[in-house]
Amino acid sequence: LVSKLPDVGTSIFSVMSQLAAECGAINLAQGFPDYDPPRVLSEALARHATTPGHQQYAPMPGLPRLREQISLKTARLYGVPAPHPDSEITVTSGATEALYAVLAAVVRPGDEVLVLEPAYDLYGPAIRLQGGVPVYVPLRLPDFRPDWDLVAAALTPRTRLVLLNSPHNPSGAVLTADDLRTLGQLLDNTPTLVLSDEVYEHMVFDGQQHRSVLQEPALAERSFVLSSFGKTYHATGWKVGYCIAPPLLTAEVRRVHQFVTFAVSTPTQHALADVLPDPELYTSLPEFYQQKRDLFAGLLRDHTRFELLPAPGAYFQLARYHRISSEDDVTFAQRLTREAGVAVVPVSAFYHDRRDHGLVRFCFAKRDETLIAAADRLRQL
Amino acid sequence: LVSKLPDVGTSIFSVMSQLAAECGAINLAQGFPDYDPPRVLSEALARHATTPGHQQYAPMPGLPRLREQISLKTARLYGVPAPHPDSEITVTSGATEALYAVLAAVVRPGDEVLVLEPAYDLYGPAIRLQGGVPVYVPLRLPDFRPDWDLVAAALTPRTRLVLLNSPHNPSGAVLTADDLRTLGQLLDNTPTLVLSDEVYEHMVFDGQQHRSVLQEPALAERSFVLSSFGKTYHATGWKVGYCIAPPLLTAEVRRVHQFVTFAVSTPTQHALADVLPDPELYTSLPEFYQQKRDLFAGLLRDHTRFELLPAPGAYFQLARYHRISSEDDVTFAQRLTREAGVAVVPVSAFYHDRRDHGLVRFCFAKRDETLIAAADRLRQL
Ligand SMILES: CSCCC(=O)C(=O)O
Ligand SMILES: CSCCC(=O)C(=O)O
Repeated sequence: LVSKLPDVGTSIFSVMSQLAAECGAINLAQGFPDYDPPRVLSEALARHATTPGHQQYAPMPGLPRLREQISLKTARLYGVPAPHPDSEITVTSGATEALYAVLAAVVRPGDEVLVLEPAYDLYGPAIRLQGGVPVYVPLRLPDFRPDWDLVAAALTPRTRLVLLNSPHNPSGAVLTADDLRTLGQLLDNTPTLVLSDEVYEHMVFDGQQHRSVLQEPALAERSFVLSSFGKTYHATGWKVGYCIAPPLLTAEVRRVHQFVTFAVSTPTQHALADVLPDPELYTSLPEFYQQKRDLFAGLLRDHTRFELLPAPGAYFQLARYHRISSEDDVTFAQRLTREAGVAVVPVSAFYHDRRDHGLVRFCFAKRDETLIAAADRLRQL
Repeated sequence: LVSKLPDVGTSIFSVMSQLAAECGAINLAQGFPDYDPPRVLSEALARHATTPGHQQYAPMPGLPRLREQISLKTARLYGVPAPHPDSEITVTSGATEALYAVLAAVVRPGDEVLVLEPAYDLYGPAIRLQGGVPVYVPLRLPDFRPDWDLVAAALTPRTRLVLLNSPHNPSGAVLTADDLRTLGQLLDNTPTLVLSDEVYEHMVFDGQQHRSVLQEPALAERSFVLSSFGKTYHATGWKVGYCIAPPLLTAEVRRVHQFVTFAVSTPTQHALADVLPDPELYTSLPEFYQQKRDLFAGLLRDHTRFELLPAPGAYFQLARYHRISSEDDVTFAQRLTREAGVAVVPVSAFYHDRRDHGLVRFCFAKRDETLIAAADRLRQL
């Protein structure tokens, strides 16, 4: 058996989480909280798990009442026309499945897909699995903003899709209305589509706002917009996300979705539909996460080995570390996990060529005591 | 946007379920029970939904304790060496995702995949999405057994995979030890792999036994074996299944799985791990479903429009109906749904060329009162 993905190993997030478990390290590597979803949500799942009639297949595109709530929330949050639950919203097994389904639906062998790097490590292999060709455009350091001239230069008649991710993993960088307008102009009169991964939409700090591609009409008409209940509700293990796209694009996503997973957990969808009407559960997130970011940054401020980069969004803190000899970032991350007992992700894992900028990523979606304990350990380094 | 699957519509199961809902028909079309999972299982999910620490990402291959239980159960049930939880078992978002991941992992453009028809309607499109070429071999009517000479004739050096499904959907036909031995001999010294969809493994009647490809060493070494907790535990809406395969094959499935959904609901996996040690929950199924099959068959025995075929396994009853004029089976199924108020699946949906044998499929995984009500309505026809 010759592998179709010979050079693809286990995702860095699995690798570092496993190493963390083996070493008894505090896991600031994989992006998930060490606290639980809101009680009202867990209790809703417990209730629906024992509700007669809620245990069989949901409709393939998602439970109607959940899609209606997503529609209402989207319109209210972004001041846009409500996406139509029947033809524009698809519930998926996490944003991961949505991402995969979009790629499988629109990328053909030889198609180019533009990826701004650093990028989530599954984008490249998922594109290649369709026979697509990832075309990588680096984000500018140290602010991780796109250089739109580089993007313009990378666009070709073969560019099927541009991947956006804002707030950005791993840097937290946030695209502005100007960015979206510029991209809209670049793509005008092209057949290029956009996949916008907005799973950290509710985590933007310092009074800034997330700007969704749904708010830029020139992009909205050609975009698949992804979100994740796992990120928003501290329930990464529930694996429910969704994709919003115009009807013709949604139809293609669903053709694939019905063959990839067919449908998503019914009791879990009911539970989410119960809590979605309460905006407090997500409007509280900027303050909640900004406090964590600031706590962690404060604890590391005078650390001689780390220099922290701005973290304007998402739930990650990037840090430049002072190298010991010629150690690369993977070696450093492993040593940090083994010796200091704090697991992190080396940022080279987000580059297809493993480019090493001497950066590591901390996830600060952790209880305050976890962040304090981790900082204590890091100080022993 | 030119569709990658232009001729693929919505799955017949969704179409008929929706028509059933619109007409207020009794839904004997889509294969799911109208009763709930065992209380002990629902209560386990309710418990884990509110258990701190059980709400974040499970490990990518599945929760270790669930994989261990799957391993123990498999060894006990089939008298085979226990598959290794670390390297041979992968938990997926339903057997659907397992099927998709296997196809995406091993089928390359131009590869042939042998499909015995009638077959589950997602096989063909999922193969074509990989650039693969489905090669269809008809099962013999009326017993839906494979003609191994036809299979032998269809095998070529390009045959990447043979798809098996026993107990068979839609006919309930069950492969024997002889069948498996014959296929093992045919594939000896070829690089052809086997995908064995055994989601109805616990539903075999009249004292017969399900024979797993795991029990035929010549096949086990080249097979991906799929099962579904949704089918076994009356919880089709929970979307958890799994794939057992030798380590090299499992490695390839996981490479895809990590990009398709990454992981499966953590609280749901915990709940399943709690109940898996109790064999009573699945050893009781043959009697449970045989009683339903016999009840339904008894109710329809003297029906002038339907002639029932043998139903040795799974939870489906095929029936030949007496045609009115030139009505095809799709038209008949729709009319049955609209006029008699009983939704069924036309068996032509299981053939790539929509071959019409004048057969429809009833799902008898329904409460006795539902089956009785459906038979009453059918008698008005
Ligand atoms: C699916 S595991 C990765 C989780 C995550 O979003 C991250 O760590 O970046
Ligand atoms: C995934 S919906 C189809 C359910 C099923 O197994 C069937 O009806 O055959």
